[in-house]
Amino acid sequence: MHGSEERIYSSQLPKSLGKEVTLKGWVLRKRDLGGIRFILIRDKDGVFQATAVKKKSSPEVFEAVDSISPESVVKVTGEAKAMDQAPGGVEVIPSGIEVISVAESPLPLDVTEKVRADIDTRLDNRVIDLRRLGTRSLFKLRSQMLKYIRTFFDQEGFTEINTPNIIASASEGGTELFPIAYFEREAFLAQSPQLYKEELVPIFEKVWEITPIFRAESHNTTRHLNESMSIDIECAFASCQDVMGYAERLLKTVVDNILRNDGPLLEDIGAKVKPITLPLPVLTYADAIDIAGKRGVDIEWGEDLGSVAARRIGQEMKRPYFIVDWPDEIKPFYIQPKGDKLSHGFDMMWKHLELASGGQRVHDRNLLEKRLENRGLNPHDFEYHLQAYKYGMPPHSGWAIGVERLLMVLTGKKNIREVCLFPRDRLRLVP
Amino acid sequence: MHGSEERIYSSQLPKSLGKEVTLKGWVLRKRDLGGIRFILIRDKDGVFQATAVKKKSSPEVFEAVDSISPESVVKVTGEAKAMDQAPGGVEVIPSGIEVISVAESPLPLDVTEKVRADIDTRLDNRVIDLRRLGTRSLFKLRSQMLKYIRTFFDQEGFTEINTPNIIASASEGGTELFPIAYFEREAFLAQSPQLYKEELVPIFEKVWEITPIFRAESHNTTRHLNESMSIDIECAFASCQDVMGYAERLLKTVVDNILRNDGPLLEDIGAKVKPITLPLPVLTYADAIDIAGKRGVDIEWGEDLGSVAARRIGQEMKRPYFIVDWPDEIKPFYIQPKGDKLSHGFDMMWKHLELASGGQRVHDRNLLEKRLENRGLNPHDFEYHLQAYKYGMPPHSGWAIGVERLLMVLTGKKNIREVCLFPRDRLRLVP
Repeated sequence: MHGSEERIYSSQLPKSLGKEVTLKGWVLRKRDLGGIRFILIRDKDGVFQATAVKKKSSPEVFEAVDSISPESVVKVTGEAKAMDQAPGGVEVIPSGIEVISVAESPLPLDVTEKVRADIDTRLDNRVIDLRRLGTRSLFKLRSQMLKYIRTFFDQEGFTEINTPNIIASASEGGTELFPIAYFEREAFLAQSPQLYKEELVPIFEKVWEITPIFRAESHNTTRHLNESMSIDIECAFASCQDVMGYAERLLKTVVDNILRNDGPLLEDIGAKVKPITLPLPVLTYADAIDIAGKRGVDIEWGEDLGSVAARRIGQEMKRPYFIVDWPDEIKPFYIQPKGDKLSHGFDMMWKHLELASGGQRVHDRNLLEKRLENRGLNPHDFEYHLQAYKYGMPPHSGWAIGVERLLMVLTGKKNIREVCLFPRDRLRLVP
Repeated sequence: MHGSEERIYSSQLPKSLGKEVTLKGWVLRKRDLGGIRFILIRDKDGVFQATAVKKKSSPEVFEAVDSISPESVVKVTGEAKAMDQAPGGVEVIPSGIEVISVAESPLPLDVTEKVRADIDTRLDNRVIDLRRLGTRSLFKLRSQMLKYIRTFFDQEGFTEINTPNIIASASEGGTELFPIAYFEREAFLAQSPQLYKEELVPIFEKVWEITPIFRAESHNTTRHLNESMSIDIECAFASCQDVMGYAERLLKTVVDNILRNDGPLLEDIGAKVKPITLPLPVLTYADAIDIAGKRGVDIEWGEDLGSVAARRIGQEMKRPYFIVDWPDEIKPFYIQPKGDKLSHGFDMMWKHLELASGGQRVHDRNLLEKRLENRGLNPHDFEYHLQAYKYGMPPHSGWAIGVERLLMVLTGKKNIREVCLFPRDRLRLVP
């Protein structure tokens, strides 16, 4: 069962009792015991109780209480008194209740979470869905998670970069891009800051960015969004192993911080988060297809792991893990090859979900040009990118972690739309 | 004169001397004194010196030193020795120099900043321009500034939100939007998170976001970009004055932090930042047009302040200031009117530049619909937005501050393109 709304108290509740106070919030629910009316009122932090008593409260207050609809915004003025049964041990005896903003009835969604609603109804009414304790707390956790991530980068000596979302050409290949009418020209929305972050490595050495990314993939799945957010890093003089270290330490730092600070939010969400022990186990790609094979899913060497194989492998691994030594041919052109057939690329997995993808990059310009050509890409389209390789490009490695993927696995949500305030998919552009 | 490159030392320099060390970096410059060769090498933090001495260093090392081009990436191995004249009082006597990545010569830009380059040449070669101390330090300051801003919001109890950049309709009116081909449909890039942040106020009460914004304004100026970043807040139960308080306290916090922590970066950039004293002076719109009039620029009541008038007013005010009590008709539909003709909108100005724009918002649904109609907008296009107003919308206020505008005024840069890594304007889509 999820956390109960009454468990967390409004920070508006006064420290000392017996005084006249004014508190504001949203009507969560009312209870009518004849001569007594209880109203539970919610604000961003928690709840407080106003208690109208026939003998003490004016008829106007009683009338106001009776006519207020749920989710209306009210201002309650009155004396704060001790009351063991009330949230925080305090109730306000209203001398005045002002309705600041009336909410229509009925609400399009039950906000007390007693009635389950399907995801589309919830998303169509997202601003109401967000009044529900579980949804609201999930996005507070998102805010906290992003803070922990940024603090980690700061403490590790990284510099924040902000790269453009509008790009001139669909140069990176692969995933489809959304075209934009940019004045007289065609431009595109960036699918990743990959090339820009690499170009900045010779200057800042260790860079990070949390940025929107846009992918025009036309399939609707529960693991993909067409607009999402990406956590990106890139580090000079770092090997694949070095940045795997950053990835697993970041994961541990986020989990440690959440467990330390955000227990009540996890309870509200109904999420169970287990501590992370480092180092994470490392499978080679060959190990991974072996495991899949033993569990009945045959992957030919060189093929990508499909979602069915990934599920089998995830069942074998009891905690997050890495897959390394991927075949070169299924990794992007900018990943450094390893020997004849392998690559210095890696994925960080959580069960069957890819949390991070990264690796050591090609830093030699000639090799990069050759690899572009081998993939059917035109080096001339990469003129500006290749310039950075002419004037002292160090060896470097990096990765990208999806914000929504990370929040999905931390909160145990099965549909990525749950962890994005206003998701964008093939069919959904509103609200 | 800007800060000197040698002033800041590499953090790779060892604490104890006499040991063999390995340091990596980019060749900044070399000096040939016959039997001695000095190489100054740069990394992300600062510089260190390698000194090859004919009697002590091998011919291979000497050859390597002589052949290395500026901006090449090198690995220097050798003994660290005390040397008063060297940066940090340490020099490395190389027993080996490995060239990890050769830089072509000549560089397309002089990176020692002795030769001035025009902004277009610099932006065409941005990854080389960023090797220049002043440019590099400016973007380190940007990273610091963003950190201070986020810490401020966290300490003030705000929740971070992430709103979509792809929106369904060009509903907000006003500024032109960039159209996107979103599968079979047309969509647009968001020009601001205005409506979304207001919709989230009933849930989180105090929200912030730092997000890209996209404006298809076709005029090229030194104060506008077509893609930029916006710092947005919105607060429940807050008046215009309350959020002006947040704006000026944020400005002061950023300036205080920069003065406390980032003196060397300011010196590198050649920027002088003065402390901020609060409260900032407040002009009414009527005061402002009065000042402009006395300085020879007549503005009719109800007209917007043009850039010429703003310059005159900026000359009169010696420090950042607010302008309040704007005519309602030149403020957006979502700004709360004040009496018959005025509005609860404000601008925060730095000289002639608008740093922040905000105000109290309309929270009454009927008034909002009426205002939409009065501006020639169709309330049906705002169906999802208006839904949030049906179910308990509190009074609220907020603002937006441009990241680049703020960094411009802090660093004294005259062209907004200087403070954006890869700016986008009418003509520029690359790099």
